[in-house]
Amino acid sequence: MANVAKKVSWSGRDRDDDEDGRAGETTPLLNGTGPGAAGSARQLTPSSFLRIGQLSNVDLNEDIHELETELPRQHPNEIPHNEKLLSLKYESLDYDNSENQLFLEEERRINHAAFRTVEIKRWVICAMIGILTGLVACFIDIVVENLAGLKYRVVKDNIDKFTAKGGLSFSLLLWATLNASVVMVGSVIVAFIEPVAAGSGIPQIKCYLNGVKIPHVVRLKTLVIKVCGVILSVVGGLAVGKEGPMIHSGSVIAAGISQGRSTSLKRDFKIFEYFRRDTEKRDFVSAGAAAGVSAAFGAPVGGVLFSLEEGASFWNQFLTWRIFFASMISTFTLNSVLSVYHGNAWDLSSPGLINFGRFDSEKMGYTIQEIPIFIFMGVVGGILGALFNALNYWLTMFRIRYIHRPCLQVVEAMLVAAVTATVGFVMIYCSRDCQPIQGSSVAYPLQLFCADGEYNSMATAFFNTPEKSVVNLFHDPPGSYNPMTLGMFTLMYFFLACWTYGLTVSAGVFIPSLLIGAAWGRLFGISLSYLTKGSIWADPGKYALMGAAAQLGGIVRMTLSLTVIMMEATGNVTYGFPIMLVLMTAKIVGDYFVEGLYDMHIQLQSVPFLHWEAPVTSHSLTAREVMSTPVTCLRRIERVGTVVDILSDTSSNHNGFPVVESNADTTQVAGLRGLILRSQLIVLLKHKVFVERANLNLVQRRLKLKDFRDAYPRFPPIQSIHVSQDERDCMIDLSEFMNPSPYTVPQEASLPRVFKLFRALGLRHLVVVDNRNEVVGMVTRKDLARYRLGKEGLEELSLAQT
Amino acid sequence: MANVAKKVSWSGRDRDDDEDGRAGETTPLLNGTGPGAAGSARQLTPSSFLRIGQLSNVDLNEDIHELETELPRQHPNEIPHNEKLLSLKYESLDYDNSENQLFLEEERRINHAAFRTVEIKRWVICAMIGILTGLVACFIDIVVENLAGLKYRVVKDNIDKFTAKGGLSFSLLLWATLNASVVMVGSVIVAFIEPVAAGSGIPQIKCYLNGVKIPHVVRLKTLVIKVCGVILSVVGGLAVGKEGPMIHSGSVIAAGISQGRSTSLKRDFKIFEYFRRDTEKRDFVSAGAAAGVSAAFGAPVGGVLFSLEEGASFWNQFLTWRIFFASMISTFTLNSVLSVYHGNAWDLSSPGLINFGRFDSEKMGYTIQEIPIFIFMGVVGGILGALFNALNYWLTMFRIRYIHRPCLQVVEAMLVAAVTATVGFVMIYCSRDCQPIQGSSVAYPLQLFCADGEYNSMATAFFNTPEKSVVNLFHDPPGSYNPMTLGMFTLMYFFLACWTYGLTVSAGVFIPSLLIGAAWGRLFGISLSYLTKGSIWADPGKYALMGAAAQLGGIVRMTLSLTVIMMEATGNVTYGFPIMLVLMTAKIVGDYFVEGLYDMHIQLQSVPFLHWEAPVTSHSLTAREVMSTPVTCLRRIERVGTVVDILSDTSSNHNGFPVVESNADTTQVAGLRGLILRSQLIVLLKHKVFVERANLNLVQRRLKLKDFRDAYPRFPPIQSIHVSQDERDCMIDLSEFMNPSPYTVPQEASLPRVFKLFRALGLRHLVVVDNRNEVVGMVTRKDLARYRLGKEGLEELSLAQT
Repeated sequence: MANVAKKVSWSGRDRDDDEDGRAGETTPLLNGTGPGAAGSARQLTPSSFLRIGQLSNVDLNEDIHELETELPRQHPNEIPHNEKLLSLKYESLDYDNSENQLFLEEERRINHAAFRTVEIKRWVICAMIGILTGLVACFIDIVVENLAGLKYRVVKDNIDKFTAKGGLSFSLLLWATLNASVVMVGSVIVAFIEPVAAGSGIPQIKCYLNGVKIPHVVRLKTLVIKVCGVILSVVGGLAVGKEGPMIHSGSVIAAGISQGRSTSLKRDFKIFEYFRRDTEKRDFVSAGAAAGVSAAFGAPVGGVLFSLEEGASFWNQFLTWRIFFASMISTFTLNSVLSVYHGNAWDLSSPGLINFGRFDSEKMGYTIQEIPIFIFMGVVGGILGALFNALNYWLTMFRIRYIHRPCLQVVEAMLVAAVTATVGFVMIYCSRDCQPIQGSSVAYPLQLFCADGEYNSMATAFFNTPEKSVVNLFHDPPGSYNPMTLGMFTLMYFFLACWTYGLTVSAGVFIPSLLIGAAWGRLFGISLSYLTKGSIWADPGKYALMGAAAQLGGIVRMTLSLTVIMMEATGNVTYGFPIMLVLMTAKIVGDYFVEGLYDMHIQLQSVPFLHWEAPVTSHSLTAREVMSTPVTCLRRIERVGTVVDILSDTSSNHNGFPVVESNADTTQVAGLRGLILRSQLIVLLKHKVFVERANLNLVQRRLKLKDFRDAYPRFPPIQSIHVSQDERDCMIDLSEFMNPSPYTVPQEASLPRVFKLFRALGLRHLVVVDNRNEVVGMVTRKDLARYRLGKEGLEELSLAQT
Repeated sequence: MANVAKKVSWSGRDRDDDEDGRAGETTPLLNGTGPGAAGSARQLTPSSFLRIGQLSNVDLNEDIHELETELPRQHPNEIPHNEKLLSLKYESLDYDNSENQLFLEEERRINHAAFRTVEIKRWVICAMIGILTGLVACFIDIVVENLAGLKYRVVKDNIDKFTAKGGLSFSLLLWATLNASVVMVGSVIVAFIEPVAAGSGIPQIKCYLNGVKIPHVVRLKTLVIKVCGVILSVVGGLAVGKEGPMIHSGSVIAAGISQGRSTSLKRDFKIFEYFRRDTEKRDFVSAGAAAGVSAAFGAPVGGVLFSLEEGASFWNQFLTWRIFFASMISTFTLNSVLSVYHGNAWDLSSPGLINFGRFDSEKMGYTIQEIPIFIFMGVVGGILGALFNALNYWLTMFRIRYIHRPCLQVVEAMLVAAVTATVGFVMIYCSRDCQPIQGSSVAYPLQLFCADGEYNSMATAFFNTPEKSVVNLFHDPPGSYNPMTLGMFTLMYFFLACWTYGLTVSAGVFIPSLLIGAAWGRLFGISLSYLTKGSIWADPGKYALMGAAAQLGGIVRMTLSLTVIMMEATGNVTYGFPIMLVLMTAKIVGDYFVEGLYDMHIQLQSVPFLHWEAPVTSHSLTAREVMSTPVTCLRRIERVGTVVDILSDTSSNHNGFPVVESNADTTQVAGLRGLILRSQLIVLLKHKVFVERANLNLVQRRLKLKDFRDAYPRFPPIQSIHVSQDERDCMIDLSEFMNPSPYTVPQEASLPRVFKLFRALGLRHLVVVDNRNEVVGMVTRKDLARYRLGKEGLEELSLAQT
């Protein structure tokens, strides 16, 4: 009994070091090469064990604050960042309940009425998620509107003053300084306090909903930084929107409320304790993300579809209906509060942060002849989107390599802010596009060099939040814009937006994309009207809408949900068909060149993201080749010392351990008995749940599910638990804590089959067994995410501790 | 080796006979009674075996044409139909691919480019589904419009003639005879040719998408009967709509096209052979159902959501996007063709069979104060819907018991048609509600006893297809309807519609529900306007819309998809929030009394329908208690005679057989090696894939996947395959045909866990194994569908061969 359980590390963890020498390469797996090729990547030297282990110890403590910025600094040349890597830093969520005895006892104790209470609680939480998300959206909207208004007034007054007496360079200086300083604050809080709040947060939420645990992504601190950051970025005049971040904000709100406590604030409200596990939390986060989309675009159905498209493993009617409820409440809250704020309390005219305004279907309907034109616009959108993504890819690579210090990041953000102001100023200065002020609804009309009673049309594009500019492009009557202005604006804004995305500020890419698209779409409409001598295609607003859809589709490559979001934002279903055509074309064309912006950033962060299906040509691989082996197993009644040693073993750092029969040291068949998680073992050790070896008949201390829930989600590291030498000799009985029915697959199962099981049930560990139910391997997320369809067929990504 | 494989029947099949004596009772399973209670239902006498077997032999040949009508006749008193039964007649679809060697070899041979071709084919099929569904909808619409127009003109002329000279009873006779004879034809074709074409087909499609194989449901003959039947029912003036049946029609079209052949027509186009399996077919049927919804209501997004809500086990982005594509094409085709037909070729104003018309959001917007009113309307809708369902339940029970002969069914349909005409006539006759003809857009204004220049308002409600009546109720200016007329109409139509649903005619319940709701909703609006002295609530059309939503929601209890369908049909997203509230309230209130109409009819047909989750209190049950045991296993190399005997054994009639190691007769562990289906065995026997026992080294005949696909989906019965006595002694090697990696669960897994695996992957057989991977039981759909949450906790349905 002295020999500790079969203990060898899964090789999965160690592959990166093996690859270090040839980092950047891949191990392409040609069709049919099968086991040999896959197996060869797995040879490793014992010495490589420890080094990896020491690194991975860091992420166990969740001490890595920077997602992509700090680590490259640690080994700037060792692991050049490329997209053919998979990081071992990310853990999976446990979407599969651990059905151990404790859990079953609790579930059996709960009667029907109590389940109804749980169900009602879920609805209440969803309502609260909706209300809070709506309120946060209102807060952002109102603060941005006021601060931005203040800024525009100051700059406008200054320009007006200096237009008269000369010396407009002072105005430029004022404008650039104002923007840069506001952005500086926004960037500093993100870079120094919570880097995961950078960007729109959509890639992070996509990963979370996919089942990847991204450190810090749903914490209260992240929410605060995100909200402040967004306000500052938008007020700072960057080419960004405040819509994307709403999705992240909604998710954090959902995660917070559903747990009924805040670990950051050290407050536990002792409510909703039933929901303290990954399964429930992830469901609520779906609702939060949907509520965020709903508040951002006034698109409750679009929000639901977004959550499902990104997150749903398994469509559940009740869950979907709850998500929809949260979405509806969210847009309704926003609508009510903003209506009251704008003084027309009862009219409910602001369902989202951005509303595309009413498209009159009589005047702006489309005919069948226009459909080829829309498809052509889709092609253009796809190409421009791909160009945007390609440029942003190079830029991001550059940033990862060279701009990884927080202070450098702040400087870059300030530079972009100043350049944005300068570009705007120069374009306004050079523009001779004057429009009559009468009858237009411009908020801050800048006269500059225009005649009295006229305003500079270019200035309205810059002296406006991007949301308003989009709406103006959709709805201003024909003739409001000079084609030259639109062309110049498209060009400059394209590069500015591309440069801006990926800065260390909280900001979204939806609105800039829409704005670029609306600008070239309107230009396209005007040209068409000009070419056809202004016949039926008189209204360029319709083309602005299609252009906006094409450009956004070309960049983010969302499908069904984006169609519905656009439909809902226009408040009109008539455009459904052309929008779908445009988005589909843009996606197909764009996918031909590079992938979508979010997927690109997910890949650049080396997240083990699981797509919908295994690569089509992966039937040649079976579980035997995919799995990590050998596996560290525990016996059903195990020595405490062994458990501590296994958990402390920094070279393996596993999170799930198959449990086998206690007398496993004989030659007898030792079939799989269950699966236990690291987090569960930690709690057991912490509560000293073991008995002396001599007194095996004694009953060990009973734990309750509550003990596990209280420790969730931040389980202490094994190092913080002191186990004395005497205690090491005690025995621990895992029977009632392990999950006695873990999902298994036989070795012969093909990769697509394993993938389907893993994905459909949202698993974290899948045990591979042989014909006699003996454990032969373990499949985790990384083992599946590693295979990918490249240009030349199936390829295998390397794993690395980035 | 002479002893045939372990062979005992699963008990699942036999439980009904055991229950015969106390048929109608259930075996309520109180919480926590566990194994004992479940096990007791399983004792059976050998004699009960054969009787069941002989019955089940019938359904193997798919000779049962009538779903609910013929069987009660066979044993009118033995099995009183009640909802606490589960029929053994229905098989599951194989949504899980059998990953045998043949399949893997084929998949491995296909390279990336070929997969792309397959993918393109899928898109082409979806486009074809969309186009054909759209065209069928157009056909129905145009034929109905013309025939109904003809009928109304004939009757109107007759009434006009007899109004002048007296003797209006002749008109009534003419009208009633016309209706009855048209309905007779419609009823005869359904009752005598294809009874599965009766009703809306939505319950059947729900079952199909849920994974239940309903005989004949996706056959060409069904489509033809359905289309003709719908036309005749609507023209016959019944209180029905043509929208529901479109969903069924779309599904049949999808099933037909995707298989590239018609078994009924004996035509094989040799295309799309790759898709000849349940997995692919079911995916396409989802697209077809969505296309049907889309064509019916002009609601492509609603269609997608309908398919997902009813069918999706596992949300797949590509699949969803294809479904959406089919939906969009469908509504677009309908729109284009109808626009051309109506003479305004380019305006695309008819996206669906029914369009609710344009709701002007300026004039008809809602305010926050109205929300409680809407919720109240939801309550009313829920109650009225529950009443409708309860009445229909009793009626259906009556029909099942007494009106099961086809000729009786035809007579009932004719009676309903005549009564509908009579009621209409009497109401028109008694009505004194005259409206000025000028300015109204009534198609067939009936003057009757009104003054010149006026028409009878009640007559328009009956002299119109129900679709037009709904739209009129939504949009006619305030004052068009007399409250008395509306009240009478609601009352009469409510009972007529309730009587009509479930008749042996092809017809839907959507439109009658909307019409009832619109009528009382408008009445409600008028009353409100009257009570508040006509302030802001001036427009009753808005209340008609909410009433329609409430009534429909109260009857069918659909949630997300119905909200979106209503939103899309109104062409306006403004009403999204109130419609959601109304539907949610109606569902909650309605569910308190009885369940939804479709679910009710599914239960009345005793279909083993799997809901989204296992009953919440079912954690007390484990796989050990749920599974059927013992299981008929086959050995990897099996004697042909044994196989034939097992397949011919009418007492078991199993469809899946676990395969164990060949030397299973020793005491050695004989772990599970694979799973083989009855259909596969049949094909093997048909092609004589076996070798003589003496020549075991000889290679047996090779089969290709094509051989299996050619036999799909109508595999011959075992009786049609002749196996000689010599051949019976040959050996058959199942290794390359069996699925070597069937999904398994340990005996300890709880029912919810087994349920989740089964449902998420759309399984047909789930093998239960012990710790040594030996087969101990089998879980099929019936074993899971049997448990249900009743009023007093968990209850177990009886199984019966109804």
